Amino acid sequence: MGVVKDDGVVIAEHAFPTPETRGPEEWLEAVARGKDELFEATGPLEQGMAGIGAGVPGFVDFGRGLIYNLPNVPGWRGVPMGKMLRERFDMPAFVDNDVNVMALGECTYGSGRAYEHAVFLTLGTGVGGGLLLDNKIYRGAYSLAGEIGHVSIDMNGIPSAQGRGGLEEYVGNRQIVARTVQGLEHGRESSIRDAVAGDLGKVTPKVIAEAARQGDTFAEEIFGFVADCVATVLASVTYLLQPQAFVVGGGVAQSGDVLFVPLRRRLKERLSPYFAENIEVMPAALGNAAGTIGAAALALHAKQ
Amino acid sequence: MGVVKDDGVVIAEHAFPTPETRGPEEWLEAVARGKDELFEATGPLEQGMAGIGAGVPGFVDFGRGLIYNLPNVPGWRGVPMGKMLRERFDMPAFVDNDVNVMALGECTYGSGRAYEHAVFLTLGTGVGGGLLLDNKIYRGAYSLAGEIGHVSIDMNGIPSAQGRGGLEEYVGNRQIVARTVQGLEHGRESSIRDAVAGDLGKVTPKVIAEAARQGDTFAEEIFGFVADCVATVLASVTYLLQPQAFVVGGGVAQSGDVLFVPLRRRLKERLSPYFAENIEVMPAALGNAAGTIGAAALALHAKQ
Repeated sequence: MGVVKDDGVVIAEHAFPTPETRGPEEWLEAVARGKDELFEATGPLEQGMAGIGAGVPGFVDFGRGLIYNLPNVPGWRGVPMGKMLRERFDMPAFVDNDVNVMALGECTYGSGRAYEHAVFLTLGTGVGGGLLLDNKIYRGAYSLAGEIGHVSIDMNGIPSAQGRGGLEEYVGNRQIVARTVQGLEHGRESSIRDAVAGDLGKVTPKVIAEAARQGDTFAEEIFGFVADCVATVLASVTYLLQPQAFVVGGGVAQSGDVLFVPLRRRLKERLSPYFAENIEVMPAALGNAAGTIGAAALALHAKQ
Repeated sequence: MGVVKDDGVVIAEHAFPTPETRGPEEWLEAVARGKDELFEATGPLEQGMAGIGAGVPGFVDFGRGLIYNLPNVPGWRGVPMGKMLRERFDMPAFVDNDVNVMALGECTYGSGRAYEHAVFLTLGTGVGGGLLLDNKIYRGAYSLAGEIGHVSIDMNGIPSAQGRGGLEEYVGNRQIVARTVQGLEHGRESSIRDAVAGDLGKVTPKVIAEAARQGDTFAEEIFGFVADCVATVLASVTYLLQPQAFVVGGGVAQSGDVLFVPLRRRLKERLSPYFAENIEVMPAALGNAAGTIGAAALALHAKQ
């Protein structure tokens, strides 16, 4: 939770683990306690509150403020969170998917703030996305647009519950690690082996990125592959939506240049000149605060 | 050219071949003569004219009514067509890409009229697209969005000037014919051979479709492959934009069920259940009139 000013600055923060609250009712009481703590920290607000915004990890009907389902949080199916927050705190309340909220934060106050058309994506355990089109978050017909992780890079590729060849099946955290471990097990030379003292269970995207930064050939290959998979989807999205920029966040994006340098190069190789000249790829700027700031932006009616 | 009423009905038509006019000035005079002919046919209009809309085969800045370039029509680079039409005929004038205009026609008066979120695609010599998002044609940052033919179905696929694995490289008219001829040359059994009396230069998508309708296994395979390639892109677009429907036009789409039956099946196979349940795939309804009607819709300010 956070108190966010209308310039996007977080002036107070509070956190509690949702799973420790047993369902929506207890969660609401924990939010109420958190709110009291936040306002003890801030003191009275000069301009009052615009409202409450929330980002949740799952499927939401934005217009109705209704959570369909949070796949990783039991007990949150069919919850009218917007109504609950509105009634409990007597102010406007908005609920959206967590990635949409991060996209809104980055596109309102972060790397995408200068743009009217931008696509946000998170590279982490999963691959998620949010679309800023005509200066508004675009949610599609049923609030679920932006599932960029399921865009296919190979019609005969890796099968999943979402189809075949979805980007996430190649560049999710686990997939990057598995690909690396497999290479090492097959005897590829790499400083990664030393970095984890021979314990391949300790390989993480961060370790691989550090090796790549040190010039490790195998680690660079891994990031080159990740970059090319992501570039394939960004090229497809560029042809389809022609945004001005891609803003890339999430853990894997924190790898920095070892990801972004090949990503920009491969994207340009995959686009005709006019499209290549008119697209930017940049890292997200707000880090973990993107969600808090973006949720606040919902209530501030920024870019929506 | 056509005169279109605000209910989408074309009440008069006129045609002339653009290449026979030597550049924009002569073209404008031909339009003026065409206009006179049209109004001789209609008589005086009760409600007067809302304006002029034009769809052109190439790259357009919609906001400025400026043609960047028409790749297949020499002499049409940097032409301010909107301004030319406005000044010559003293009424509002709008210029857009031909596929956007067809999309607008289908989504306003054709198969997509019931939807607020629909994606139109043409399957013909090329593969083009237009996006109806939130009940408006979405043109992207620089008016070039909707290039669905360049969305990749295989990151290591067929190279082109637009990248690798673009849909058009698999399902364009010529590619469908080439794939079929190749199979026949390699000795595949098929009634197509008889249908063209052994002259493989006469194979067309229409001939292949007719053979598929008659139950020819090889022809069905060809359409099964085309359907699966298209389904791959439609699945990706569904995850990205979550439209309510796809409206499919163009010559190849006139194949009817031999295309649409496998296309719908493959699309559903490539989507998770929730997405699969909430998407329609339908043939375009307006045929060749889609462009005329859609261009008129520009001037009628329908869905834009």
